[in-house]
Order: sequence, then C-alpha cells, then structure tokens
Amino acid sequence: MTYCVGLLLDAGVITLSDTRTNAGVDNISTFGKTFVVETSGERAMVLTTAGNLAVTQAVWNLVQEGVAIDGITQNLSQVPNMFRAAQLVGAAVRQVFAADGPTLRAQGLGFDVSILLGGQIGTQPPRLFLIYAAGNFIEATVETPFLQIGEHKYGKPILDRVLSPATPLDDGITLALISMDSTLRSNLTVGLPVDLTVIRRDALAVSLRRRIDETDPYFAFLRQRWSESLREAYRALPRPDWLG
Amino acid sequence: MTYCVGLLLDAGVITLSDTRTNAGVDNISTFGKTFVVETSGERAMVLTTAGNLAVTQAVWNLVQEGVAIDGITQNLSQVPNMFRAAQLVGAAVRQVFAADGPTLRAQGLGFDVSILLGGQIGTQPPRLFLIYAAGNFIEATVETPFLQIGEHKYGKPILDRVLSPATPLDDGITLALISMDSTLRSNLTVGLPVDLTVIRRDALAVSLRRRIDETDPYFAFLRQRWSESLREAYRALPRPDWLG
Repeated sequence: MTYCVGLLLDAGVITLSDTRTNAGVDNISTFGKTFVVETSGERAMVLTTAGNLAVTQAVWNLVQEGVAIDGITQNLSQVPNMFRAAQLVGAAVRQVFAADGPTLRAQGLGFDVSILLGGQIGTQPPRLFLIYAAGNFIEATVETPFLQIGEHKYGKPILDRVLSPATPLDDGITLALISMDSTLRSNLTVGLPVDLTVIRRDALAVSLRRRIDETDPYFAFLRQRWSESLREAYRALPRPDWLG
Repeated sequence: MTYCVGLLLDAGVITLSDTRTNAGVDNISTFGKTFVVETSGERAMVLTTAGNLAVTQAVWNLVQEGVAIDGITQNLSQVPNMFRAAQLVGAAVRQVFAADGPTLRAQGLGFDVSILLGGQIGTQPPRLFLIYAAGNFIEATVETPFLQIGEHKYGKPILDRVLSPATPLDDGITLALISMDSTLRSNLTVGLPVDLTVIRRDALAVSLRRRIDETDPYFAFLRQRWSESLREAYRALPRPDWLG
C-alpha cells in the first residue's frame, strides 16, 4: 500500500509520499515513489506514484524517454504545459496497460496504478493532477486544493477541516505531515521514510526535497505534539450529562 | 454504507450507529441499525448492523424468534452467556446465507453483513463481539477495546490514540461521537441521526438509548468545538524551517 498527498496552494505545490512497498505482508521493501523533472528557470514537476511497482516504474521510464501523443513524441522535459504533461503521463499509463495488461489479467492480477503530477511550466500557473489507471485524470481546484492516492482515508479529515489554497507553504508541509502521521499510525503497509517535495510558485525549480525518517527532529516532535494536542483537545471537551 | 462502533469499557458497553441506508446514491433512506434485547435484572444486549438491509433485518428476526445450535433452539433472551449469544447471531447469519446466498450470487450480488453484539448476562462480565458474514466472530479485548463495522477508517485514529478500558462511560460517549463526526464529515453515505446505546456494567438493563440528530445541543456543540480544537491544535504547532 501507499499514501501520497499533493497540495495545490497559491504559494506552490507540495507532495508527500511514503516509501513502503509490499508483495504480500512478508515481502516489504523501501522504494521511493517520488520523481522530479526539473529544468531550472523553465519548469519543475513532481510525480508521486501508487500501485503495482513494475507498472509505476515503467511509466516513470516512459515519461522520461518520450511517449507519442497525436503522432508527436515528447517527454516531460519537452511538453509545453502541465495539461500536456498530464496527458503524457496518461498516455504512458495506457502504453504500459497495452503491453502488460493482458498478461496481468490472464494471471488474475489487476492493473493498479495512480499518479499525482504537480508543477509549473514557464509563466503558467502551477497545477496538480491525479492520473488514473485508465490514463484519464482529474485536477485539483480552489474548492478541493488537495489530491490523494493510495490509503487516503485516515489522513483526509484534517485536510478537509483546515486546508485552503491560501494556506502558506510551511503550514502546508505541517498539514501534509499530520495527514501522513495519521495514516502511518493506522495502516502498517504505509511506512517511513517519507519524501517531501516543494515547488514554490514561480521558482521554476524544485524548492525543497527532503527524505524524512524517524530520526528527523521536526517530524518526531510534530508526531508527539499532535498526539498530545488531540488528547488535550479531547480532555477539554465537555461530557454529556445523559447518564445522570 | 454504515458506520457503527462499539466500546468495551470496564464501566460497560457503548455502541453508536448511524441510520443511513442506500441502494445506489439516488435511493437513500433512514433505518435504525441498533437493536436491543433486555430482560431487566437478568440481561441486556445491543446489536448494531452493517450490510445488506434485507440480510440484517432477517438476522434480527431470527435471533428474536430462535435459531437451532446443536439441536437446541434458543433466542437471545434465552442464551446462557454472551459467547452463546454471539454463536446464535452467527448461526442466524449462516441460516440467512443458506436461504438467500445462492440467489444473491446468481444475480451477481454479494452476501454482505457484519454485526456488533455487546452486553452482559447475569454475573458474567460484559463482552463485545463482531460477527462476520461467514458467521464466525472476534471479541474485543483489553488491548483493543473497540470494534467497528462499515466505514471504519475515518473514525479510527482518535480511538487508537485515546481509548482504553479504563475510559469512563461519559468519556466513551464523547469519543464515540467524535469518531462518528469524522466519519459523517468524510463519507456522505453515513448519515444522521445516530443511535447511542449504553449498557452500564452490572446494571443488567439498557442504561441509555438516545437518538441524536443535528438539533441535539450537545452533539452540535461537540462537533463545532472539536473542529475548532483541531484547528487550534494545528495552528499552535511549530512550522518547519526547511524553506529558509
């Protein structure tokens, strides 16, 4: 399993992904699920992936190498805008499906992949997409400025309550880490370390890449403080007088 | 969809269930999913149900009417202990599966049911069970003093963090309502009103039954205050200095 979250803020794009992969509960490994494409001063993109590792790695290779759309072969360093980038990732997913899907199905396995793609090209605004296994995609909006893939439920309530496009980048990092913490606590197949990526608006470069594990002082403090805060908030609530 | 949670505390048993049923998103109704069996001074039990409404209603009818186990037909008012009560509910589930399962499968429908059963009989300690669609069941323990059925993920983190068997009943009610609130916010197929049931240890009677809707002053206050508390707790957290 996997948990990845992407935030589309006025100030830029943030993604956070875990690194645990498992083929059964007795075969657990650490694989990065975050990939960046950067041409400084021109474009910066981040992809995070969930699903079958062979499929997601194949997609990542294809989008670097080039995929044909409407007879034109381009890679993510060449596409003229983020919509085209999302189309390219979708086309890569379909290409892998065409190659591997029939055999996977013949062996009773699903074709399981979903990808977050965020970033900015030139003077166009930053955008954030979620590409599905069918190669189609949706885009984050002002109403819903975050997208999630993988084990999304545990980490969703805090985002629903607090996040807005006006959230500053450092607040967004804190929120993404809280959302990840809730998921790490409740689902063993989502595991540390986690990979944080920040693309500040108009920087046209990756502003921050950070791998965070249990020894990271800020994340360790955040996890402990958040847990204490929730307990304190719960303790401070009034109790019902229904039992007499 | 449904969300039901049951708590097994030193002080007694608490259950909370929502009331929304849906056959597709355009056919939504309100049905109680909480049922009690009470013989004052002798036994008090509560069942909450998730899954196919025809199946859960059939099970509820059978456990009142009587189901044969090892040649002896008993109902929930007659079983000698809570383990036998859980076996009886399991046997009822299997009886409905034997009757309806083949036709459901022939029409491409699953046999979908899960049931929480909590309560106390005589001088034996209170117990809490989760009965599966196969009729087998698990029991809450000191390490894991709560069980959930239906849409369980959104409401699990707060229980993981705070609940213990020593939690008093009024605290347990507050926790169950917070857990329900998180679920109501994130899944539209879980809906108000909710049904709260408390069986105080050694009361051998249902201590509290309360239907709670959006006009309930305590629940309305709790939802608002909890939401504010989470926002405040988040605002009070330090931010990382990673962005310079």
